[in-house]
Amino acid sequence: MDRVEFRTCPERYRHWRLKVDGAVATLVMDVDEGGGLVSGYELKLNSYDLGVDIELYDAVQRLRFEHPEVRAVVLTGGKDKIFCAGANIRMLAGSPHPWKVNFCKFTNETRNGMEDASAHSGQVYLAALNGTASGGGYELALACEHIMLVDDRSSAVSLPELPLLGVLPGTGGLTRVVDKRGVRRDLADVFATRPEGFGAAKAAAWGLVDEAVPRPRWEQTVAERAAELAAGMTRAAEDARGIELTPLAKERTDTRITYRHVSALLDAHQGTAEITLAGPEAAPDEVLDARFWTLAVTRELDDLILDLRTNEPELGIWVLRSRGEAARVLAHDALLLERSDDWAAREIVLYLKRTLKRLDVTSRSIITLIEPGSCFAGSLFELVLAADRSFQLAGPSEEFPDAAPATVVLGPMNSGPLPMGNGLTRLATRFHRDPAALTAAGAAGAAGTALDAADAERLGLVTFAPDDIDWAEEVRLALEERAGFSPDALTGLEANYRFAGPETLETKIFGRLSAWQNWIFTRPNAAGPDGALRRFGTGRRADFDRKRV
Amino acid sequence: MDRVEFRTCPERYRHWRLKVDGAVATLVMDVDEGGGLVSGYELKLNSYDLGVDIELYDAVQRLRFEHPEVRAVVLTGGKDKIFCAGANIRMLAGSPHPWKVNFCKFTNETRNGMEDASAHSGQVYLAALNGTASGGGYELALACEHIMLVDDRSSAVSLPELPLLGVLPGTGGLTRVVDKRGVRRDLADVFATRPEGFGAAKAAAWGLVDEAVPRPRWEQTVAERAAELAAGMTRAAEDARGIELTPLAKERTDTRITYRHVSALLDAHQGTAEITLAGPEAAPDEVLDARFWTLAVTRELDDLILDLRTNEPELGIWVLRSRGEAARVLAHDALLLERSDDWAAREIVLYLKRTLKRLDVTSRSIITLIEPGSCFAGSLFELVLAADRSFQLAGPSEEFPDAAPATVVLGPMNSGPLPMGNGLTRLATRFHRDPAALTAAGAAGAAGTALDAADAERLGLVTFAPDDIDWAEEVRLALEERAGFSPDALTGLEANYRFAGPETLETKIFGRLSAWQNWIFTRPNAAGPDGALRRFGTGRRADFDRKRV
Repeated sequence: MDRVEFRTCPERYRHWRLKVDGAVATLVMDVDEGGGLVSGYELKLNSYDLGVDIELYDAVQRLRFEHPEVRAVVLTGGKDKIFCAGANIRMLAGSPHPWKVNFCKFTNETRNGMEDASAHSGQVYLAALNGTASGGGYELALACEHIMLVDDRSSAVSLPELPLLGVLPGTGGLTRVVDKRGVRRDLADVFATRPEGFGAAKAAAWGLVDEAVPRPRWEQTVAERAAELAAGMTRAAEDARGIELTPLAKERTDTRITYRHVSALLDAHQGTAEITLAGPEAAPDEVLDARFWTLAVTRELDDLILDLRTNEPELGIWVLRSRGEAARVLAHDALLLERSDDWAAREIVLYLKRTLKRLDVTSRSIITLIEPGSCFAGSLFELVLAADRSFQLAGPSEEFPDAAPATVVLGPMNSGPLPMGNGLTRLATRFHRDPAALTAAGAAGAAGTALDAADAERLGLVTFAPDDIDWAEEVRLALEERAGFSPDALTGLEANYRFAGPETLETKIFGRLSAWQNWIFTRPNAAGPDGALRRFGTGRRADFDRKRV
Repeated sequence: MDRVEFRTCPERYRHWRLKVDGAVATLVMDVDEGGGLVSGYELKLNSYDLGVDIELYDAVQRLRFEHPEVRAVVLTGGKDKIFCAGANIRMLAGSPHPWKVNFCKFTNETRNGMEDASAHSGQVYLAALNGTASGGGYELALACEHIMLVDDRSSAVSLPELPLLGVLPGTGGLTRVVDKRGVRRDLADVFATRPEGFGAAKAAAWGLVDEAVPRPRWEQTVAERAAELAAGMTRAAEDARGIELTPLAKERTDTRITYRHVSALLDAHQGTAEITLAGPEAAPDEVLDARFWTLAVTRELDDLILDLRTNEPELGIWVLRSRGEAARVLAHDALLLERSDDWAAREIVLYLKRTLKRLDVTSRSIITLIEPGSCFAGSLFELVLAADRSFQLAGPSEEFPDAAPATVVLGPMNSGPLPMGNGLTRLATRFHRDPAALTAAGAAGAAGTALDAADAERLGLVTFAPDDIDWAEEVRLALEERAGFSPDALTGLEANYRFAGPETLETKIFGRLSAWQNWIFTRPNAAGPDGALRRFGTGRRADFDRKRV
């Protein structure tokens, strides 16, 4: 199979239409049946695959950056009778396990991103279900803050995965039904075991949708509701101009990925991707556009994460490095935080937040190496905190004869603007049962102290601080050891360790729900030759092992 | 294989010695190598299987009820050099997936029960690791509030599951290391990937244990610490006498399980266990002993849950009914709550709480049927709230010609003393996003109103309220439909729906961690012919599929 490409733009969309009319945008899902990313299935009934969702992600991002005027986004369908039938079942049935899991992760992130826009950007999502929304189609609606369903004799919302396919809804549906919408668990149980779901009246009565709208009043009511929602949002000044997300320059071979600020060496033998981020080349420009370092580097890191997750599943270890001047990173951070009244500055920080969260839920071991010449300061220091382990080289190094010993610097970006999915900063999560350590780290951050390896280790900010004599050997051993472990067990270990402390809708979706889905996907009752997923559409019922586990 | 029997008593222990000396009890793990529950493995190095843990559970229960004088429990080992090597690996490698998962669930519940004693009964657990505690051995220590490790040249704590077996520690270890003990995630990562673990000094420095004690001072220091801990606990009056947990009478055939108050009909064809609880036969006796209805019925329900979970995996639906007088249930509840200063009354309520929690994490569909003549009131109403669905028969019924229409009654037991693992009552979890509904239910409870089916349905307390004409058909259809679904998908659905709202150490262990373990256990990298679990001890390394999922 060809590599999956995540870069796209509205002119290239095959499955979506994006229309902007003042404060209201409309995103119309109109899937091209023959436009599947992989051969072997047709995207009937507005069902989707990864390719459809890549376009949705692009649209959601462009609405954030290119359309400061948009305060409400109407998500609706371009077909008759059906809004969206969810993830394509033949695609799911024919996909290998890692593909299914990676697909669900990305679709989850895109839906979380829509909720992030509603919550933090004054750009609220409204689901206008002009026909039946089933499975992933309804889950897409659940990621919107207001759900309207046309009230006719045929349209319904449903989660038919369990009764028809023997799996769970893959994109947060169960969690959002009970935790976000507060549907009572016994009613939620009835709903998710009923393949045909419920029509508008009952769906509204049970809280599965917010509004049932008769078809004759449909278009007018949707327009009214969108206008009302938009009117309640605060986003940008009237005359604000968008930031165009210009095409992302990228060179890609089997062994190397190169962007402007980010590059990666892919080592199949070692099982590693060695990723280096370059800091800003100058003081921050006052103009916030796609060339602004923080935005540019975030876009590149985002694309790299998606590329590696999807196209390089055997590179189990990501080694993170940086090169550049800490002061310039901190100056960019400072400019963004000073201008927190500016929608554009806010959007850049929110995008960085989302991209770092993507790293947190990535099933790869993350090792950060802090060497002389690096610039892990402020926002970039989050890459140290996101790592499963970090090494900071203590003292001078023969390998870096011209550079001063490595230091790290904390700043205001580490104390609030970039929370993890659990709602805490990475620093607060790290020290969630050690308030004294958190206070000490916060004090070092407030003072802007450049911390050498001994200081950083003492403060608990890095894992190990070997000197030049031990550095290469210690790092090599750590990478070799990690490469020898069970990849599955590492995924489980990391998923459990990375989110200490409180849980949220997001951590529940990526932790509890995704783990159960993964398990069910591997079970013969779903994926075996007689399982429900494989037998769907054959007219034969699945043959279940009835033992409860 | 023979049915597994959970009833035991200290005289029959093969693996543990329980010694009580005033306020301090000592529980010595001294596993009989040849005493495995199943053939095919030897319990070397104080490793354990389900049989060993059944005895531990019995000891923990007896310490709660029979020993009001005990305020500290020292958990230690009876072998030289080794405290406990964890769950037996040959047993794990040779067990079918459902057995492993059920085993881990029970061991988790026992460890949670130890923490419950420390937190709520003034009976605190101290782990005195007189030798190496690895894997489940260290996890057993993690369930104690204070961990002492002998400081010699050989003893260590470790979690070698990931590096040696390609699975995760099965009994809450990962969660407790970061969430309970607050070990930093990167250090926790180093620890759980290092097969040999760490000796006392480093383990204490990293927070993995609380104390490193040189061998010459070992016994004295353990005794001192136990005495100190006991002195800090408040439990019962000096002259309090224990409640003897007299042998539980039980008749068991392939199709029926009968206790004094609880009975179950096992229908293999229908895939159901039909469980009926009988209410009290009289007003509560003032004497709190093993005959007191609440304690007796809780013991029976507890044993039944364990029996069915372990011995009847194909009975995927548990149908719960009750028979008796609501007023008598409420009178028993009231007596226990009035006497909340009495350690014995507290213990009974805490045991009921733990048993209901066991139901919450049981991977069976739970359907509660509220018929005329039932007594779902107060504590027994929790069985309605614990159900995935409930049906209350509206109006009179030909099947119950002598009984008044079914009612349910809420009481003080529903508003606090019996929280779920998430820390909320079942009522508060049910209405966690609907404070008005919670208030209305609470008001009905405060008034002690007997709620008929229409009232209960209107208040959101039951799922369906069919009348006599529809009752049999609706219930039959619900059971048949459920029996036709994928058992795995139902387990995932229920595990996600039952715990809306906040998360705790406990819900993290049963939700997130257990789901990841289940997934990893099913993967070829662990359980396949070339997987780590199967190759352990053969001298050959596992052959991993390196793809990260």
